[in-house]
Amino acid sequence: MTNTKTTKIAVLGTGGGGRAHAARLAELGYEVHVGTRDVEATLARSEPDMMGNPPYKEWLADHPGIQLHTFADAAAAADEIVINGIDGHNALSTLTGISACLSGKVVIDYAVPYLYGAEMDHPWPTPWGTMPKLDPCDTDSLGEQIQRALPDVKVVKSFVTQEQETVVNPKGIGGGDHTMFVAGEDSDAKRTATELLAAYGWSDVLDLGGIVSARGMEMYAHMHSAIGLALGLGNHFGVKIVR
Amino acid sequence: MTNTKTTKIAVLGTGGGGRAHAARLAELGYEVHVGTRDVEATLARSEPDMMGNPPYKEWLADHPGIQLHTFADAAAAADEIVINGIDGHNALSTLTGISACLSGKVVIDYAVPYLYGAEMDHPWPTPWGTMPKLDPCDTDSLGEQIQRALPDVKVVKSFVTQEQETVVNPKGIGGGDHTMFVAGEDSDAKRTATELLAAYGWSDVLDLGGIVSARGMEMYAHMHSAIGLALGLGNHFGVKIVR
Repeated sequence: MTNTKTTKIAVLGTGGGGRAHAARLAELGYEVHVGTRDVEATLARSEPDMMGNPPYKEWLADHPGIQLHTFADAAAAADEIVINGIDGHNALSTLTGISACLSGKVVIDYAVPYLYGAEMDHPWPTPWGTMPKLDPCDTDSLGEQIQRALPDVKVVKSFVTQEQETVVNPKGIGGGDHTMFVAGEDSDAKRTATELLAAYGWSDVLDLGGIVSARGMEMYAHMHSAIGLALGLGNHFGVKIVR
Repeated sequence: MTNTKTTKIAVLGTGGGGRAHAARLAELGYEVHVGTRDVEATLARSEPDMMGNPPYKEWLADHPGIQLHTFADAAAAADEIVINGIDGHNALSTLTGISACLSGKVVIDYAVPYLYGAEMDHPWPTPWGTMPKLDPCDTDSLGEQIQRALPDVKVVKSFVTQEQETVVNPKGIGGGDHTMFVAGEDSDAKRTATELLAAYGWSDVLDLGGIVSARGMEMYAHMHSAIGLALGLGNHFGVKIVR
């Protein structure tokens, strides 16, 4: 345990990204509380999810010690850090709905505000290398929306420029010689996030300033997808800021 | 001269980026034809431009051999490659206006479609690390607009993820160990652009596929600005895709 302050971490969301964080945090010795919308429904699923992840119940059986709760109960169990792994389309409403359990805590948000379903203007993943439309985009960001909606939460936008499998294991690519970013209004919260990143194995974390920089970080999603498709699906990569 | 096919290159635009390309191309032995809206007006200016660049007439005197023309005449003089260094707000209308002189040629476009002036919703540069609103954005790009407007021109989006001083001299950062991108519909045109990049000193050029990837490349502008501000104004940097 590299961070002696934090022992109980909440991870909201049961998708591939949330699983990557939960598994790695458990491996690092943290007490991991995963949040989901409906615990019974999550455990009842017997088919892979839309991304091909196995049913959560099976995954949970392979990861003893990780505790599954509602979003609110998971957030309440965290002593300092809540990782938001809820998809960008639902993140703001879900986090706002559990605001009492998040008060005073550090929310590390890696969601990309893609439009899905009826609001989506083309299929996903697209055949042509960019992803669904972003909303908000350019003059606002999901990170800023969350910070405005939850003024007594310390929002840190991070992790979003990478696959979450790479975020939790940066040394798997180029020996870890690449760069991660943090942005947010609270310096202590950014330090907390940076310490967690160090526990994951990151040595180069660049502070991009206030939460407004979440705009660029979220809008980078299209570039990330284009690079990933150029390298071939499933080929993860790092982005190193050379200076 | 690394590319034996191309000897006459046009650079449209007299700003800092256009000057960087023109000077470097002349140094590499190309015959450089610079285009501007109004040759007399460009030569008559006696004050630095809005970015602090010295008057063009002074710059031109320091760079003998570079020829200044109208946009149309410069484009017509190019045997294959036209570099678009016109600001993103004016690029589409200007290029469309000289379409006859561009026909069949490779246009390498690095413009970012920032809104300026009355359409700009905040001052530039902003104090908070992102740049003016982009238009188009997310579901279209300037690169795509130019390609649609000029179907018999081979548009390659490139250079846009970097300061142009870095594009023309990549070895000035990290010995050149970082990555440049190209996108476009025509493979031969992308090869031509990649050969030019090799002449500039680039060894890692990643093909991001069709011109649709111009979306991500242009939208990366906010991230680029945020990183630049984080590192300190004037500190150029490279972006290396680690794989």
